[in-house]
Amino acid sequence: MRRSWRIAVLPGDGIGSEVVGATLPLLRHASQMAGLDLNWDMLPWPSTAWHEDNGQMMPDDALAQLSQYDAMLMGALGDPGPTSNPNRYLLSDGVSLSPLLTLRKGFDLWACERPAQLLEGAHQYLADDRARDVDMLVIRENSEGEYVNQGGRLHRGTPRETATQLEVFTRAATERLLRHAFESAQRRAAERKEKGQTRHFKRLDGSHATSQVCLITKRNALPEWGELYTEVFEQLSQRYPDVAIHHELIDAACMKFVQAPWQFDVVAASNLQGDILTDLAAILSGGMGVAPSCNLKPDDRSVPPLFEPTHGSAPDIAGQHLADPTAMILTAAMMLDWMGVEDPAASDAAEHLRRATEASLKARNEGSTLTGTDNISQHIEHFLAQR
Amino acid sequence: MRRSWRIAVLPGDGIGSEVVGATLPLLRHASQMAGLDLNWDMLPWPSTAWHEDNGQMMPDDALAQLSQYDAMLMGALGDPGPTSNPNRYLLSDGVSLSPLLTLRKGFDLWACERPAQLLEGAHQYLADDRARDVDMLVIRENSEGEYVNQGGRLHRGTPRETATQLEVFTRAATERLLRHAFESAQRRAAERKEKGQTRHFKRLDGSHATSQVCLITKRNALPEWGELYTEVFEQLSQRYPDVAIHHELIDAACMKFVQAPWQFDVVAASNLQGDILTDLAAILSGGMGVAPSCNLKPDDRSVPPLFEPTHGSAPDIAGQHLADPTAMILTAAMMLDWMGVEDPAASDAAEHLRRATEASLKARNEGSTLTGTDNISQHIEHFLAQR
Ligand SMILES: CC(C)[C@H](C(=O)O)[C@@H](O)C(=O)O
Ligand SMILES: CC(C)[C@H](C(=O)O)[C@@H](O)C(=O)O
Repeated sequence: MRRSWRIAVLPGDGIGSEVVGATLPLLRHASQMAGLDLNWDMLPWPSTAWHEDNGQMMPDDALAQLSQYDAMLMGALGDPGPTSNPNRYLLSDGVSLSPLLTLRKGFDLWACERPAQLLEGAHQYLADDRARDVDMLVIRENSEGEYVNQGGRLHRGTPRETATQLEVFTRAATERLLRHAFESAQRRAAERKEKGQTRHFKRLDGSHATSQVCLITKRNALPEWGELYTEVFEQLSQRYPDVAIHHELIDAACMKFVQAPWQFDVVAASNLQGDILTDLAAILSGGMGVAPSCNLKPDDRSVPPLFEPTHGSAPDIAGQHLADPTAMILTAAMMLDWMGVEDPAASDAAEHLRRATEASLKARNEGSTLTGTDNISQHIEHFLAQR
Repeated sequence: MRRSWRIAVLPGDGIGSEVVGATLPLLRHASQMAGLDLNWDMLPWPSTAWHEDNGQMMPDDALAQLSQYDAMLMGALGDPGPTSNPNRYLLSDGVSLSPLLTLRKGFDLWACERPAQLLEGAHQYLADDRARDVDMLVIRENSEGEYVNQGGRLHRGTPRETATQLEVFTRAATERLLRHAFESAQRRAAERKEKGQTRHFKRLDGSHATSQVCLITKRNALPEWGELYTEVFEQLSQRYPDVAIHHELIDAACMKFVQAPWQFDVVAASNLQGDILTDLAAILSGGMGVAPSCNLKPDDRSVPPLFEPTHGSAPDIAGQHLADPTAMILTAAMMLDWMGVEDPAASDAAEHLRRATEASLKARNEGSTLTGTDNISQHIEHFLAQR
């Protein structure tokens, strides 16, 4: 059903505003081509506020304002602090990131999804050519776990100083995460079937399934939540007999993401372990220059999801218009995909944007040495205009 | 100074006893060639005890017995549990690993070191040929942090279940870890200089250093210990002005281990983050089949270090003599290196063992399709005999 969409655009810091600037005209163009009714407002809330102003990074009513929108499209957050600090790239990067966690927590965007698929023309880091077949979805728990920010420092600065940080995992959050992982596996298998494709995942009893969920824990060293995850996983799996189950310890999983990533389908992980695996997944997709990501509340479409490239604000190259906008453009396409569940025009727009980006990537890979945020964006525009 | 050495050999579980069996004759031979006075006792304490016996995996006086030795050489620990459990590979692997943590904690082996260097003939996973230049040392905190095993499960099995796990970091352990990292960087630069090699690491002010320590944290999401690590790092760095300093967040570090690992020198990380990075470092060295590791107390040579391959007990192939013993043989060479600080004969033996292993790897890579634990060991023996 066609409808109208309102999105909040948050350019953020550093290269964020550059890649957003390069993306919006393409998003506009692709939407017009598809007849998609898409509107946006720019919300310029850079985190430079924390050192230039009163330390506040978003207005007090930020969440209320943002909840008026259907989705959020963000460039990048992260500012290394005042330029007067010579070690600013090295020794400070924490302070200005909190808005990201505020948005995730404020809207209970409990899942972070990052697909890994090597687009034609994207850089292949692995020597084995099966790296071209990588096709996985990493689903990260985004609301609790290692990121509850409960901790402190005792006897600060003294030889007996002790810092603590608590990890908190609930069965409720574990269940919704893993249920979503199983459902995503089923959906992916159905999509493959529609395209006439199948994949086979071996079960322990020798039989095969057409999709798989791999659970990640470090239950041999962090047993409490590792066993909770394992128990919930085993229980839920009985409701999804068509999906094969698998488990990897986080250290082995990182290794296997480099050794044989084509073996994975859906991967479900905790907040920190998912953070690590999604960065590795980005590399498998061709690097930070092309890796989109999404924070969402899968069980409630009325809550605006937050779409952002996996890359950060890259303060070292900010202001020079050197950043590759491809990841941001693919992030916009991911947002269109999400809208496409309700509105076929959005799916069409996503298709236009993604195909043009792929054509550009392929052409760039075949010899053109195109660099520069705006040059790349114009290159993609060229392919969009041809569609 | 020549002296006599006593080591405790702990074959452990699964492929552990197979690779140990394949390594000891070579260790004997190399020692004899070098005139090294080396003796060992076999301590067969497999963790199968936990399901076959009373759940106890080592005798009560294990630590007392082991403290009589100069070093420990372990195959692998980890048993998937009773064969009667059909999901044993999938859903249980925690229980039997505790002896490893018991040994690390019991002897306060607070550093775990895993070098990454791609031996000639070892498998290159990365497409970029600079992967051959990788030369780093990952030093992992091995005594606290995420692995303090303080946690619990509240309202177990109910919808409101909550699992917690505490992370505890002390300034004392952080200081000894990072001091050791800086000293290791200096030692590595001196060793390079001796061989007529230099590496250059850029500082923020544009100048260059001949070695570098890269600190790993996740201080933007786990600020308490991340800031403690950063403060201690900054303070200590002033005492090592010849060493360049660098910082990476764990997610970015994993990415860079795949994108450009040749840029790293010494990498210092917490227990869990180090666990992850050392597994990736193993891949950079050519995979689990060739990756040695060591747990030690760098400030006290009277405490026996624990040498073990990075790989686990691989229950899926255990009993079939399929495992590559190379990692175990290189672990034995790492042990000889450690002895070599006091006893030149041990350095000679390490040299023999390592060169023969490299020659075999190279020959195997050039076309021979040798497999099987004992075949590979005999192949290496052949090159040892030629020296
Ligand atoms: C910026 C940081 C707090 C964040 C995270 O760890 O979640 C980032 O790495 C990400 O993956 O989105
Ligand atoms: C077996 C496990 C507890 C251990 C660890 O995490 O330390 C292993 O992965 C390792 O790296 O030695």
